Amino acid sequence: MTLRLETIAAHLAGLEETLIYKLLDRAQFAGNPGAYRPGHSRFRPNEASSLFELRLHFQEKLDTVFGRYLIPEERPFHLGLPLPRRVPFQNESPLVIHDFETVNVTGAIRSDYLALLPVLCGEGDDGQWGSAVEHDVICLQALSRRIHYGALYVGESKYREAPDRFAQLVTDGDDAGLLAAITRSEVEAKVLERVRAKVQAVQALSDPALRRLVDPDRIVDFFRATIIPLTKEGEIRYLYQREPGV
Amino acid sequence: MTLRLETIAAHLAGLEETLIYKLLDRAQFAGNPGAYRPGHSRFRPNEASSLFELRLHFQEKLDTVFGRYLIPEERPFHLGLPLPRRVPFQNESPLVIHDFETVNVTGAIRSDYLALLPVLCGEGDDGQWGSAVEHDVICLQALSRRIHYGALYVGESKYREAPDRFAQLVTDGDDAGLLAAITRSEVEAKVLERVRAKVQAVQALSDPALRRLVDPDRIVDFFRATIIPLTKEGEIRYLYQREPGV
Repeated sequence: MTLRLETIAAHLAGLEETLIYKLLDRAQFAGNPGAYRPGHSRFRPNEASSLFELRLHFQEKLDTVFGRYLIPEERPFHLGLPLPRRVPFQNESPLVIHDFETVNVTGAIRSDYLALLPVLCGEGDDGQWGSAVEHDVICLQALSRRIHYGALYVGESKYREAPDRFAQLVTDGDDAGLLAAITRSEVEAKVLERVRAKVQAVQALSDPALRRLVDPDRIVDFFRATIIPLTKEGEIRYLYQREPGV
Repeated sequence: MTLRLETIAAHLAGLEETLIYKLLDRAQFAGNPGAYRPGHSRFRPNEASSLFELRLHFQEKLDTVFGRYLIPEERPFHLGLPLPRRVPFQNESPLVIHDFETVNVTGAIRSDYLALLPVLCGEGDDGQWGSAVEHDVICLQALSRRIHYGALYVGESKYREAPDRFAQLVTDGDDAGLLAAITRSEVEAKVLERVRAKVQAVQALSDPALRRLVDPDRIVDFFRATIIPLTKEGEIRYLYQREPGV
């Protein structure tokens, strides 16, 4: 199957646009630190987990039934989910890998996202914990989709540009060499520029009396410090797992 | 408790903005008529319902556990949902009514939304049924929230402007009189203008190579023919259920 870089790039830009909207929506609620505190969900009977953790786990248990995690870039935040009851329609895959779960970087996505929340939403409590964690789940799913889509499809397309070189780096276990080989600084700079422009343009339409505005730097920094590095970490994992010579 | 019309109007405008984003997101997928056909969910073992119906029901069964339907304006599309395990924090309510479910107009919301889909998304099939029905649930929840919030809070605020007049119309069972008394044509015209401007402005930012654009008339028409009339129907239901003399 062919793999056109322009198609991948366009799809990534679309996923980034969606993600920006979701983060700005989450910022309409306070940080609500209590929603992330284990044992404080206000569930009856009480639960050991936080409200955030309960919401994420319940949603993933629902989504897996519908077959979400059979899609390569939809990687879950939990292990041990129930079996799907539905197999989604999928086009023939250009990816060459046995188990997409070997590319799962959701642990780091979750911890970096939780660290972003006070920066994005402040430390206050508006009482709307339920809405806040609903938006968190939507943001985490959008992040997982964007990062794993990049890891898998950009990883595969880079491999195809220089299969012998990548096979050798993998054989040598040369992580630094792999990181250097997949890094395209000029593309990263363009992504950050595009994110900044998009955040500014979206918010230029918003009435500050109705919507809380977010400093574009907060979101650009998150792309720079989390989304881009985790995508590259995922690409390296993909390259290690990719079956050679196919 | 005081009830400021400007606060209600600002909140409604915010809900409308959210709703517009959700409808434009749904339009990124095809109409996928098969996803609405009973027995075609591709679930194993097979289910009698459509994929859309399964997704909506599963999601409501999850959301009710977290207490969503204890919020006045969050009215569900299904009866017989499980009991909540959590009571959300709520400010003191200005509403004077025993049972919010007497104001539930989700039956009409669902059928009008399903009729909108071919207009919004076309009749094609892109194979992405799972994503399409996920977005449907998000759209329906945003619609229910917007319409019932208007029905309840605008209904109460109008009652307070002329309690004797409304009490008399209710006693007389004068539906036409109630409809005339709650109708503010100049406000409706402004809502439609604002919706059109918002749809145009949001889409002006979108790259047509990445995003499918929607004719603003399609969304303005839906506000005119469904959202505004159902809000008024909900207001009338609220006025009939409102406890008099409080």
